[in-house]
This record gives sequence, structure tokens and C-alpha cells, in this order.
Amino acid sequence: MASINTIEFKDEKLYLIDQRKLPGKLSIFECENFRDVEFAIKDMVVRGAPAIGVAGAYGLVLAAKEFIHLPKEEFFNEMAKSVQLIGNARPTAVNLMWAVKRMKDIMEANNDKSNEEIYKALLDEAKAIEKEDLETNKSIARYGNEIIPENSTILTHCNTGALATVGYGTALGVIREAHYSGKNISVFADETRPRLQGAKLTAWELVQEGIPVTLIPDSVAPVLIRDGKIDVIIVGADRIASNGDTANKIGTYMLSQIAKDFNVPFYVAAPISTIDFDIKSGEQIVIEERDISEVTHIDGIRIAPEGVKVYNPAFDVTPHENITGIITEKGIIKPPYVKNISRLLK
Amino acid sequence: MASINTIEFKDEKLYLIDQRKLPGKLSIFECENFRDVEFAIKDMVVRGAPAIGVAGAYGLVLAAKEFIHLPKEEFFNEMAKSVQLIGNARPTAVNLMWAVKRMKDIMEANNDKSNEEIYKALLDEAKAIEKEDLETNKSIARYGNEIIPENSTILTHCNTGALATVGYGTALGVIREAHYSGKNISVFADETRPRLQGAKLTAWELVQEGIPVTLIPDSVAPVLIRDGKIDVIIVGADRIASNGDTANKIGTYMLSQIAKDFNVPFYVAAPISTIDFDIKSGEQIVIEERDISEVTHIDGIRIAPEGVKVYNPAFDVTPHENITGIITEKGIIKPPYVKNISRLLK
Repeated sequence: MASINTIEFKDEKLYLIDQRKLPGKLSIFECENFRDVEFAIKDMVVRGAPAIGVAGAYGLVLAAKEFIHLPKEEFFNEMAKSVQLIGNARPTAVNLMWAVKRMKDIMEANNDKSNEEIYKALLDEAKAIEKEDLETNKSIARYGNEIIPENSTILTHCNTGALATVGYGTALGVIREAHYSGKNISVFADETRPRLQGAKLTAWELVQEGIPVTLIPDSVAPVLIRDGKIDVIIVGADRIASNGDTANKIGTYMLSQIAKDFNVPFYVAAPISTIDFDIKSGEQIVIEERDISEVTHIDGIRIAPEGVKVYNPAFDVTPHENITGIITEKGIIKPPYVKNISRLLK
Repeated sequence: MASINTIEFKDEKLYLIDQRKLPGKLSIFECENFRDVEFAIKDMVVRGAPAIGVAGAYGLVLAAKEFIHLPKEEFFNEMAKSVQLIGNARPTAVNLMWAVKRMKDIMEANNDKSNEEIYKALLDEAKAIEKEDLETNKSIARYGNEIIPENSTILTHCNTGALATVGYGTALGVIREAHYSGKNISVFADETRPRLQGAKLTAWELVQEGIPVTLIPDSVAPVLIRDGKIDVIIVGADRIASNGDTANKIGTYMLSQIAKDFNVPFYVAAPISTIDFDIKSGEQIVIEERDISEVTHIDGIRIAPEGVKVYNPAFDVTPHENITGIITEKGIIKPPYVKNISRLLK
């Protein structure tokens, strides 16, 4: 089973796999206090929305430990500052805000207790967040496994694995489950330009676990889909609209469109928390543009001429018509999505 | 106009733009003799089939110069060795073999002449090959310009420019022509993984000439095509079958398929010499697989885990159904290709 401990809280320290060093080196980044955790989130030692949320929660546990001997009022002042610091380490990470809010609620609910008791309550909550993430992933994996045929070849994009979560993954969790249930699967992993999460992280995870994987440049995937080399495609999601339109890593749309042209099943795997019920369709999703250096440089080396203009969208929107099903921890949602997503909510 | 002298023969030396150093540095590689030329071809100082052919021809001019004072028999012996060496510098480059054969034919046709006269005949032939390549490109460019609308946005893939030829380019030649004819065009250039010829060479050429260019990761192009941001797509070709099926750099197929789905014109620009009348369809084209280090490393830096399997096809085949037209030096070939390609031959 999964031997990758992306995040581990042990002996009052937080241990993170240093994802900046992968795949060249597996090294552990040790956080002794909440400032170390803030740095780890900011500098992308840890990445992937669920993983960042859990790391942030443990960061506040470390803060409580540090300030435990202060008088109650000072303790609460210092904790409020820590909440600010950790919560803003990555402004766009929804899971981080959500996790920090849960921790804050616990502090407030226990504000008449001793610092020791508050520390214990925070530790329990962080553990709960971690456990829930893992359970959600395992549930997604079990439902997802139902749609994976025996002896099949699966295509995936970006990294949706143990490294992006606390230990199993969403789309990659489904792949793990299929592998460990003995289905004799193999995987094509898109390298996923520009940040190369497929090459650096997904390929690394699968090689670590002995799951057969072949790395490809992103533009190879369409040919494989056309030529009948892919049985099923599974990707993750950044945000899903109420109608099923899905924002995910740039390159996802391309796969979905070619898959539709050649009748290859295309699934999205994501926790229900990824569904944004406030937006009706993908048209309302603003496409985040990232720094051009992600395209002009690789690991600090310039690969494009000085002065060139770059368009570097972080993700694209796959229309719901291209999606065969959305695999969640409560089951697989099939079209029509508007009806079936809102039914799930009830 | 084009200020890029990819290849220049001057004062009995061959000067090449060192394409290994682009886009970081524009440096000139000086070839004093045919061994320097052999090295330049082998080590990819010069690349692109037409450019390699011309460089090889001048390499034999340099050989003739070196051996000019030898007795006739020795001169021919040494020239035969040079032909072998230059001709095998890049075994798969069809244009190199073709250019070397033309030079060999000239030597044989003049074998009763003096070494001085043979040298002069070889120099004239090399100049003729160079001139023909440029004229072919200019003719392709003029025909191609007819299908470029005013104020349009053009998408291209890989490098088909001055650097791949002796000075104007095929697909990129069409783009140059449209720009210099005042059509107010702009270009999206795919970075073209794995070798990044789009980022390193195409973007560099266009920036040099002040033609508006935006560099994108390959997987961004499908979204731009879908969203109506691209008016026309032009790519080059490695080999075209008698039915119009076209082998070109990996990633070309994907563009053609999405373009077909959204009714965006998709053109191939290539000299008639690219059409292989011996093959009926793309099914007969063997897909060359290249070294996995092109995917696992960028400029010597490892970006994928040790031991990962990689699939790295150099090109893909675009079916003729996806091609709006093939722009050649004799005009634009439209469907039905089987009929119209063979008509062109007559």
C-alpha cells in the first residue's frame, strides 16, 4: 500500500515531504514551529489544496504548543496572529482557509478551557481534518474503481495523488485502488507543462509504488486516445460548477475533447467540497494566469528568448458534455449534472 | 526583412548560426573545413532538413578546396571519403542525402576537368541548392499569404522558419510574408515539447523580426482554438503521403483535430519534395521514437524520476480529412488530395 507520507505529525513536530526537491531527492522537511509551516506552504514544500489545508491545521497546533505557557489573553493574541499568518500563506488555497477556520472555531468553542485543553482540542481537530481527507479519498477511490476495467490502460494528467492530499489522492487514488485490487492496470502520465507535476510528482509516486507508468509529453496523449490505446481517462478538479463544467489543470480540456471524438470514457474524481454550488456554469470561472517564468524557465534555466510575450493560464474549463461521470466520496454523479448534483446535496 | 543568416558561405568558410546556443546567445559557428561541417550537422549546430542539406553541400565545397592541390586520383579518393562522412552525419535527413547526391553527380559529370574547375562547379551547385531552397520558400510564402486574412491571429507549431531552412521558412515563411505585406497579423507559437523548438527557435526568430508573438504551452492551443481566438493554423511537414496524410512534429495531430471540431482552417506548408509518392497513406509512415532523455531532462537537468518509462514519438500523423490545404511552391493543393496531388506531379 501507499508508502508515501506527504504529511506526518509526530512527537510534536510536522514532517513534510519536500516537494521542491522531487523527483531528484526524497527529503523530509521538519517543521518545529508554525513559522516553519508558514514557510513550507509559501515556498511550496507542500502543495495540493487538501495537503495545504492539513499542513495549515497542524501549523496552528504547533503555535498552541509554543504559546501554551502564556497567560490566557496573551495566548489568544498570539494564536490570532498565527491564524493570520498561516491563513494567508497561500491566498488562493480554499482548503487552507477552510481548515484554518475550523481550527479557529475550535479555539472559540473552548475559550473557557485551559491552554492545555485548548491545545488538545486543536490537535484532535487537526487529526480529524487529516483523517477525513484520507477517508474521502479512499471512498472516491472505491467508487472510482468500479469504472476501471481489468487489464486497462488509464491516462491521467497533473498530480492528484498522495502528494496533493494527505496520502491517497483523488484521480490517482482511483488508480491506486485499481492497482491494489489486482486489476493489472497501467498508466500513461502526461508530464503536464508548464510546472511538470506529471513528470515530477505523478511519475515519481507511481514508480515508488511499482504501478506501471509511462511518462509522455502532453501532446502525445491525443494520438494515444485516437489510436485506441487508452481505455479510460481520469483527472482531478480545481472547481466544479453546478452544471458539471470542471476547471482543472491546463491540458484537461484537450483530453476531454479528443476523448469525446473517439468515445473514450472521461471521468473527473474530486471530493464534493470541490463543487461550487454558487456558480451555474464554467463561464463564471475566472481563469487564473500564472507567472510567465513558469514557461520561459525550467528549474532556473531560460528556455525562451528575452522579451517574448507568454500566455500561461493555470487551468482550463472542460464542458460537462465531455464528462462521462464525476467520481465523489458519495458515489459517481452521471449526467444530467444539474439534476444529479443537486440531488446529491439533499 | 529577414535578418537571420542561418547559413552563409563567405571567403571560403561556412558560417552557421549555432542553434545549440539559442535563444540564450546568438553566436556564429565557423567551419573552416568539411570536418567542421560534419561536426556541426552531427551535433545539431545546424538543424532542419533543408538547412542540413545546404550545409552538407558547402561541406563538400570545403573538402574540394582542401584537396585541390592533390593529384587527380587522390583528389577523387579524398572527395569520396568526404561524401561518405558528410552524407552519414545525420542518417535520417533525406535532404542531406539528396544534396550530397547532387554534389556527387556534379563531380562525376566533370571528372575530366581540372580540380580547379571541379571546385568551381561544386561551388556553383551548392549555391544553386541554397538559392533553390530560398526560392521554394518564397514561393510557398507567396501562395500561403493568399489564405491569411487581414488582422488575423495565426497558430503555429515547432520551428519551420529561417533556422530550419536557409533563410525564410515554410509555415513560418508564410507568416513572415503576411507580416511584411502589412496584414497586421499576430502569432501564437506552441513551445513544442519535448525539444522546445517553438520556445527556443520560433519565438526567437519572431522576436528578432518584431513580428508579434505569444508563446504558449502546447496544451493551451486547444482552448484558444475552441474559444475562437485563432483564425488560421499553419504547420510544416516531415513527410506527406500521396493521399495528403501528413507526418509532422508531435502535437500537430491534436491541433488539426480540435481545429476540425471547431471549423478553424488548418494548413500544411511544405515543398513538393516533402511529398512521398511511394506511400499511399499515413499508415505506411513509421513513427520514429527518440531518446527518452528528451523528456526526462531539459538542458541537462533531470525533471522526471529515475527509472520511469517514457514514450517519446518524434512526430504524429494528421489525417488528410483534417487538412484544409497543402501550401507548396507550385500552389495550394486542396482536397481531394489523391487526385490533386497527382495532378500537380504532371
